[in-house]
Amino acid sequence: MANQYFVKQVYTTFNFFIENPEKHHIFNVMRARNGERLELVFSDGKIALAEVVNAEKAEFKVIKEINRNNELPIEVTIAVGFPKGDKLDFITEKATELGASAIWGAPFEWSVVKWNQEKLLKREQKLAKIAQGAAEQSKRNLIPEIKLFEKFTEFFEKLHDFDKVIVAYEESAKLGELSKFVQVVDQRPTKIIVIFGPEGGISPQEVNSFKDNGAELVGLGSRILRAETAPLYALSAISALLELNK
Amino acid sequence: MANQYFVKQVYTTFNFFIENPEKHHIFNVMRARNGERLELVFSDGKIALAEVVNAEKAEFKVIKEINRNNELPIEVTIAVGFPKGDKLDFITEKATELGASAIWGAPFEWSVVKWNQEKLLKREQKLAKIAQGAAEQSKRNLIPEIKLFEKFTEFFEKLHDFDKVIVAYEESAKLGELSKFVQVVDQRPTKIIVIFGPEGGISPQEVNSFKDNGAELVGLGSRILRAETAPLYALSAISALLELNK
Repeated sequence: MANQYFVKQVYTTFNFFIENPEKHHIFNVMRARNGERLELVFSDGKIALAEVVNAEKAEFKVIKEINRNNELPIEVTIAVGFPKGDKLDFITEKATELGASAIWGAPFEWSVVKWNQEKLLKREQKLAKIAQGAAEQSKRNLIPEIKLFEKFTEFFEKLHDFDKVIVAYEESAKLGELSKFVQVVDQRPTKIIVIFGPEGGISPQEVNSFKDNGAELVGLGSRILRAETAPLYALSAISALLELNK
Repeated sequence: MANQYFVKQVYTTFNFFIENPEKHHIFNVMRARNGERLELVFSDGKIALAEVVNAEKAEFKVIKEINRNNELPIEVTIAVGFPKGDKLDFITEKATELGASAIWGAPFEWSVVKWNQEKLLKREQKLAKIAQGAAEQSKRNLIPEIKLFEKFTEFFEKLHDFDKVIVAYEESAKLGELSKFVQVVDQRPTKIIVIFGPEGGISPQEVNSFKDNGAELVGLGSRILRAETAPLYALSAISALLELNK
């Protein structure tokens, strides 16, 4: 199966040239040669089998358009309270493989790490690269948007953009509210956000703010999941409920 | 919430003493003190809130039995073709959190690593520790069984012990056979095994052997999952379908 790459070029049936950093990656790192065929995802979302015409010049021609949609049936944004260490790298890679449309992070009350604007920008760039690599490997049609918020309030204001706001809350699982998540997903909202706390959890004040704004608190199974595992459960569950369960 | 530990002691209402390595872990590493209360899972599966009577002697008394079942409604064994590096560590930790009853590994035709009996034994011991830690953290009622096979045929012979043998097979996803996994899980077999290939996949010969023995080949969503991600998808999906979807 041909490797897949995202390029900034829009779809065209004329010969075309790609630019760095994709040029560097495809020709210097992956060492594509004249005549080799790759799957390119264009900036307008179209996918084509393309052949290298001239590797020196990074010149391609389209062989045929590929009709393929590997995206989840609903748009899912995964939002996490900043976790410790490189857990955000892990979450980004796996959430991309599992179909997230966007991966957001924000400082929650019980987040241990504190990042300033400069540090956030660097982290965002690193995560964007991880997301692109994982999106290529898993044959996604798009690269998830990466967004790290400096302030919780900035993040909170964005919640109005979603049809449904879901908060993964351990206490809900304990109260036996295990069917809520399925109920919400079964309504097939177009665009949802699923929110996860950092290692220490979501503070009572945060839970109340979410609730007062119409968020649904849900439990994700009977076991206690680590901060970095819960988002993978939610995405897998959404896929199982909407893609497999037809 | 009190920390949970597995002990080799059977449940008793008399005062009791625990042994190493649990004694060392609870008193030297976690530094439990007189009067502290912990949740202990006894070797017969019973759980109790217990109080440290004498930390020096590792002596406990039961305060009250705890009635809790955090296990998946069906027994799920995860079996993987030996993957590279420390991916088996990762799979063991996450599959334990997500409710696997057993985690098995075996050399598949396209596994890159080759381990001899001595190396396998060491790996098994390491994985058993990882599973115990993850089972404690996620509040499981049992520690998943860890088993690494030296030969593929030894592994293959064990498949008769299961009600259903499921093979995660990328080609099935491509053929659009996405509902098969749900169909099998919805029949609520008591004891299933879900088999995953190493990074390179499952060889055609292996697929045919599984098929000839009545295995179901299933796809797990539209995207291509890495070897270490697919088992987490399967366990999350089983939980969503059987624990949440009531």
